[in-house]
Amino acid sequence: MDTVIGIDGDDAAVQFERLAILGVGLLGGSFALAARRARLARHIVGYSKSPTTTRTALERGVIDEEADSALRAVHGADLVLLAVPVASTADLLKQLRHGLEPHALVMDVGSTKGNVVAAAQAQLGARQSQFVPCHPIAGKEKSGVLHAEAGLFDGKRVVLTPLPANSDSLVDIATEAWEAIGGVVSIMSPQEHDAAFAAVSHLPHLLAFSYVYALSSQPQGSAFLQLAGPGFRDFSRIAGGDAQMWRDILQANRDDVLHQLHLYKQALAGFEAQMRQGNWAAVESLIRRASQVRQGWDAPSAADDDV
Amino acid sequence: MDTVIGIDGDDAAVQFERLAILGVGLLGGSFALAARRARLARHIVGYSKSPTTTRTALERGVIDEEADSALRAVHGADLVLLAVPVASTADLLKQLRHGLEPHALVMDVGSTKGNVVAAAQAQLGARQSQFVPCHPIAGKEKSGVLHAEAGLFDGKRVVLTPLPANSDSLVDIATEAWEAIGGVVSIMSPQEHDAAFAAVSHLPHLLAFSYVYALSSQPQGSAFLQLAGPGFRDFSRIAGGDAQMWRDILQANRDDVLHQLHLYKQALAGFEAQMRQGNWAAVESLIRRASQVRQGWDAPSAADDDV
Repeated sequence: MDTVIGIDGDDAAVQFERLAILGVGLLGGSFALAARRARLARHIVGYSKSPTTTRTALERGVIDEEADSALRAVHGADLVLLAVPVASTADLLKQLRHGLEPHALVMDVGSTKGNVVAAAQAQLGARQSQFVPCHPIAGKEKSGVLHAEAGLFDGKRVVLTPLPANSDSLVDIATEAWEAIGGVVSIMSPQEHDAAFAAVSHLPHLLAFSYVYALSSQPQGSAFLQLAGPGFRDFSRIAGGDAQMWRDILQANRDDVLHQLHLYKQALAGFEAQMRQGNWAAVESLIRRASQVRQGWDAPSAADDDV
Repeated sequence: MDTVIGIDGDDAAVQFERLAILGVGLLGGSFALAARRARLARHIVGYSKSPTTTRTALERGVIDEEADSALRAVHGADLVLLAVPVASTADLLKQLRHGLEPHALVMDVGSTKGNVVAAAQAQLGARQSQFVPCHPIAGKEKSGVLHAEAGLFDGKRVVLTPLPANSDSLVDIATEAWEAIGGVVSIMSPQEHDAAFAAVSHLPHLLAFSYVYALSSQPQGSAFLQLAGPGFRDFSRIAGGDAQMWRDILQANRDDVLHQLHLYKQALAGFEAQMRQGNWAAVESLIRRASQVRQGWDAPSAADDDV
């Protein structure tokens, strides 16, 4: 049951006997495939709320074994990955906590961390020391195990937001696990994480949803959409995100998102005021500032995946 | 001087003896290269405010001849293309009007049409009948003749907004000219054009500028930017646009943009109100509506160019 630190050059530096994937969707399935590729885990068991999903994952060789409950899945597992919508984290932890092995490392993949930390502290009690909250910045437009791929985390940033109860060595093991499957690990507090992602991901989604909603609600919306080009395509791409997932994220990170929204509305009001007053030199100067920032931004290596 | 309608299968159906490009930048230079490729014009003369630009275009074979004024450039030309920032249109027309041949077709490439039409009517008088306003929906992140390419208009939509004074046959010739270099022509009124592009292009630019401005104005803005991923990359790409060009466009299409901004702020306020009231089912339903619209949108064939 103990974690084996291997020395074989072909294998991952850290290895697990039994990996339990709870929620075998795009991220859970990709973690399983990546773990298999990197020989991070010898045996992979999967559980999903929908038995069809688990069955598909088994048939496709994503997992080695299906479990019929979260409790059974974590039995004997030394690595447990929660890959469910963030709003389901508390429920899932409640289901599995009595089966959790005392030496198991538990990680998640949620896009918000404050609520996940709260769920872990509420549901796991003293065992919260085993739970290292994680957020791999990886994904795709399409969800589901059928789109899972072993390379999904290659070169992608993975943010770890350790709890005070986590030992340094457990955080090291979590780091090595993500690195073994291609991730690049950053460590910060859950608060820093949520504040940053409200700014660079959650707010843009809210703005893109609102924009497409406003556009399509006009009498001429459909006609306008037919004239839309590449600028529209890229600006609005994230508006195609999954409604339930993004509802969960906006709910979980409500306060940080509303704070970012406040700052954004101030900036937008500044642009609007200058336009209404006809201060076109001021408008140009505001645009130039934004344009210079954007042009100076170094895109991450990831070329075609979504947050 | 008359337009030659060719019958040779290798050549364009419509041909011009002498094409004058006024403003040999990305769009003007690309039109010249495309016209040469399609044998749309036998001889191409170029004029730019900066002699260095015209010289570069000549040295690179983009144009055959450089003119030292707009007036000289249009002398003898049966096709004149204005490819300057929209705010410079009136000035340019004033410079060239006394040299314009009576049978020349004049076109532009401006992203706004109401102000271009007003400039043409004010500066050209009765000769406005020769001016067919055009907007090719093509471009690149990078400007300048060095980035010009013959294929820039391939498969791209080109909106023509004819004036009441234009003859049907002149509009047909303009259509054939754009089709000869790969464009797909749509015809609408200047008002329809400006309303539509306020919605699908100008407002998104304003929102992206405001967003990047707000993000970078925060104390932690730089730190946040380092965590930004592919969602941010695509949403904010258009914020990297040229400040002067976008100042001109927002100024030229101010009323339509402010109208779209009003509708957008209403939608955003709707999202915010539901978030503040904790109506998460309502938030999910708003997101779902936007997500369905975006997923149902057919992107144009153009894969990597900007509006």
